[in-house]
Amino acid sequence: MTRFARVALGDRVSYAMVTADLQAEFLQGTPFGDYRLTGERHALADVRLLAPVQPPNILAIGLNYRAHAIESGAPIPERPVLFIKANTAVCGPDDPIMLPRIAPDEVDYECELAIVIGKTARHVSPATALDYVLGYTCANDVSARDCQLRLDGGQWSRGKSFDTFAPLGPWIETDLDPDNAEIMSRVNGREMQHSNTDDLIFDCRHIVAYLSEAMTLPPGTVIMTGTPSGVGFARKPPVFLRAGDVVEIEIAGIGVLRNPVIAA
Amino acid sequence: MTRFARVALGDRVSYAMVTADLQAEFLQGTPFGDYRLTGERHALADVRLLAPVQPPNILAIGLNYRAHAIESGAPIPERPVLFIKANTAVCGPDDPIMLPRIAPDEVDYECELAIVIGKTARHVSPATALDYVLGYTCANDVSARDCQLRLDGGQWSRGKSFDTFAPLGPWIETDLDPDNAEIMSRVNGREMQHSNTDDLIFDCRHIVAYLSEAMTLPPGTVIMTGTPSGVGFARKPPVFLRAGDVVEIEIAGIGVLRNPVIAA
Repeated sequence: MTRFARVALGDRVSYAMVTADLQAEFLQGTPFGDYRLTGERHALADVRLLAPVQPPNILAIGLNYRAHAIESGAPIPERPVLFIKANTAVCGPDDPIMLPRIAPDEVDYECELAIVIGKTARHVSPATALDYVLGYTCANDVSARDCQLRLDGGQWSRGKSFDTFAPLGPWIETDLDPDNAEIMSRVNGREMQHSNTDDLIFDCRHIVAYLSEAMTLPPGTVIMTGTPSGVGFARKPPVFLRAGDVVEIEIAGIGVLRNPVIAA
Repeated sequence: MTRFARVALGDRVSYAMVTADLQAEFLQGTPFGDYRLTGERHALADVRLLAPVQPPNILAIGLNYRAHAIESGAPIPERPVLFIKANTAVCGPDDPIMLPRIAPDEVDYECELAIVIGKTARHVSPATALDYVLGYTCANDVSARDCQLRLDGGQWSRGKSFDTFAPLGPWIETDLDPDNAEIMSRVNGREMQHSNTDDLIFDCRHIVAYLSEAMTLPPGTVIMTGTPSGVGFARKPPVFLRAGDVVEIEIAGIGVLRNPVIAA
């Protein structure tokens, strides 16, 4: 089990390995290239966890759990449906999700397993695709449903790219079976989504291979793999995020990504 | 008139100012921060022009010329329609546009005025939006229409994000009236599109202000502002790019962005 975190200690930002006893062992370099342990270590409680990666692109797959496609009223996709989130939307553990002042009313959570690419991938096969993956983290594909579903002519990018709409963390776990990971979301402690990545329509190795046929995936690329059923807009009555809420994304074997919600 | 080019001389990459007599005067630093002329100059013919910016995000506005919305069979948008192109798609002047091996048959050109953000913009008004713009360059929003329009569940990102599908260049022109710039595309010398940015439904200052309400626009952000009518898929019969073609995007006051087309 190797966990790579990006941490701040005062003004200094560094990668660290997180130990089983919750110490941050600082690295020189990054897990995307050469690195070595510096010997400096701090209790995890004494550093601030940041988003574990600053991705060049955030690629995301829509409608990749059958029950979520059905609750969304969308057909089951025949191939992965790609959309892209602006990388300016990234925030880290405990950072607030800001309700946009122009679209505060229908902001929704989506728990997702996020793939973090470690080595440049281009034209890779499903059989070798996971060799290009550094590890996995928890993601919240926060979405302003009014923009996504009604205002933007069917394109999802703006509704999913508001600042703070891409929480990532708490760290990158390198040893995870991406085909069998329990995944959950909670709002104010109430479980809203609960599934397992074995329900993905397109699994991680197929997603990486598929995307690598279209484009180069440089180190640090984040791929959000889709969300299971139970999102807020599909509930009766709908549940949207309000200032003061706390959203948790948990993936067994990785950890919990927790973010409060605030007004802009 | 100030023109910032990114150039390669052998292995060395540098920003340069392009003079009226087609010299490249090298800079230390970048036009997105502090820079100074180094005194080194070369004939433009002796250096290689690169894409003039490596954008953190490529934001793009769809259906932003009335006649193009109509030829696409789409309603006239009530607000800017945002989609995002992966920044791995960028290529520079004279770089080949590669027909993807998985989608070689319906690759189309789109000439667009591209805004290059110079200073971080967030919640800016239309009245001040252009103060955050460094300048403008020519863009080709290359699109695999089969992916964009039929295969990807209505999302445009994959069809517009294949490697080499975002040619930019030849340089960033800082002194341009973005509300009155003649814009054209040619394939093998034949004019395919010809319009003026005064036909934009949403002009540059409104686009920058609108996007800055959703997200932070860091320096280097590229915003493609939409394409006029005359694209290949809307022609009868359709015209798609084939290996051996040469595509030119010309914007009066900026210059010509020329790219050959090759098989992958």
